[in-house]
Amino acid sequence: MTRFKLLIEFDGTDYAGWQRQKNGPSIQQSIEEAIFRFCGETVSIVAAGRTDAGVHGAGMVAHADIEKTTDAGRLRDAVNYHLRPAPISILEASAMPDGFHARFSCTGRHYRYDILNRRAPPTWQRHQLWHVTKALDHAAMDSAAQYLVGRHDFSTFRASQCQARSPLKTLTRINVSRSGDIVSVSCHAPSFLHHQVRSFVGSLVQVGLGSWTPKDLDVALQAADRTQCGPVAPPQGLYFVRADYDDKTLG
Amino acid sequence: MTRFKLLIEFDGTDYAGWQRQKNGPSIQQSIEEAIFRFCGETVSIVAAGRTDAGVHGAGMVAHADIEKTTDAGRLRDAVNYHLRPAPISILEASAMPDGFHARFSCTGRHYRYDILNRRAPPTWQRHQLWHVTKALDHAAMDSAAQYLVGRHDFSTFRASQCQARSPLKTLTRINVSRSGDIVSVSCHAPSFLHHQVRSFVGSLVQVGLGSWTPKDLDVALQAADRTQCGPVAPPQGLYFVRADYDDKTLG
Repeated sequence: MTRFKLLIEFDGTDYAGWQRQKNGPSIQQSIEEAIFRFCGETVSIVAAGRTDAGVHGAGMVAHADIEKTTDAGRLRDAVNYHLRPAPISILEASAMPDGFHARFSCTGRHYRYDILNRRAPPTWQRHQLWHVTKALDHAAMDSAAQYLVGRHDFSTFRASQCQARSPLKTLTRINVSRSGDIVSVSCHAPSFLHHQVRSFVGSLVQVGLGSWTPKDLDVALQAADRTQCGPVAPPQGLYFVRADYDDKTLG
Repeated sequence: MTRFKLLIEFDGTDYAGWQRQKNGPSIQQSIEEAIFRFCGETVSIVAAGRTDAGVHGAGMVAHADIEKTTDAGRLRDAVNYHLRPAPISILEASAMPDGFHARFSCTGRHYRYDILNRRAPPTWQRHQLWHVTKALDHAAMDSAAQYLVGRHDFSTFRASQCQARSPLKTLTRINVSRSGDIVSVSCHAPSFLHHQVRSFVGSLVQVGLGSWTPKDLDVALQAADRTQCGPVAPPQGLYFVRADYDDKTLG
């Protein structure tokens, strides 16, 4: 048996999310079925993070335990072959040392949220970002976002159905930048609460529109009260970008 | 009557091309029908260039003559409203002085062609670029591309059905660059022959793969013979990016 690390890109538009579930196709199920078609093994893959319906993966990491003797390049190509025509792609596969675990070994997660900030509707990118028609002050958003950095009770930015034991989390970095019509929010933390990034973005957009001052975001954070959150941003602008691992777990 | 300049973005995936035709929906027809729904006028819009089925517009320019009294912002918003849910968007509308003509006043056209150069299949971007799995030497491609600059008989890179009177054209600039997994070919010329950019790209990919030397591209150009062209690149990587106009025609 070999444990393989998979680096995965996917378009979440037509999926019920990463995790296997009864109410629709999931990314996890699609990959597990492609592995079954390759080697006849029923595996449960484990990911660094879960994503909701409509959220995308630019660099999701998962692990899969495979009995069949194969090398990483062959596994990647075969799973990609059996995934067709699903918009899910194994970018890299790597054989891992004992003890590697895509979720428990992960030391940091990166998410990016993309907003198209222009009056005209989006075209080919419509399922890949959130369209906000009024002008956003991205500098004010970036300034406000810095209140979120550090260890806090993030109850304000946590979905009611969140299963984490504690609302205390540490946000390592967040920044808001603009490139043409695209305003992007990048976040890094050891781990996140459910809907945390989308809750951040929804509240930061209130700042960008001038409805909230940057200080209002801090007040909402300090309240530790879900009712103080801005409207949660829709899923289609969110990307799981990268998972970090210590060198020792990578062998 | 006011002549309006329209700056247009569109996803060409599900269209038979820019121009009105019998065998499928076109970008032109969609916009003309949206204008009709706004003002009840049957207009013929004229574009800076034509694009084939599957080719995209990132900054196409067209003009429309409208009798109804309206301002440019209202026209843009109303046409976008009536275009829904088509993946076609009027980015800007501007009232133009007499004599402006989207096609005949245009002094330069820019196209970009995007190639995804990696082994793993594309996901959300699959209709927006050409997937080439073998490694491309973009520096060799850029070097070869410089043979194309200047005034030449471009018969090698011209579709058999091209309606231009002469194969003589001037290519102002071309460059090939890489950003991560994306290799982009950017071209600028006063005007182009039918399939010229896709023919350039198909031949440049032969250079990038090492099947042709850069000098082979020059030999193919000098032959002025369609049979010397590499396999024509598919439409989905091509974008009409920008049309240039002299300040005097812009009033």
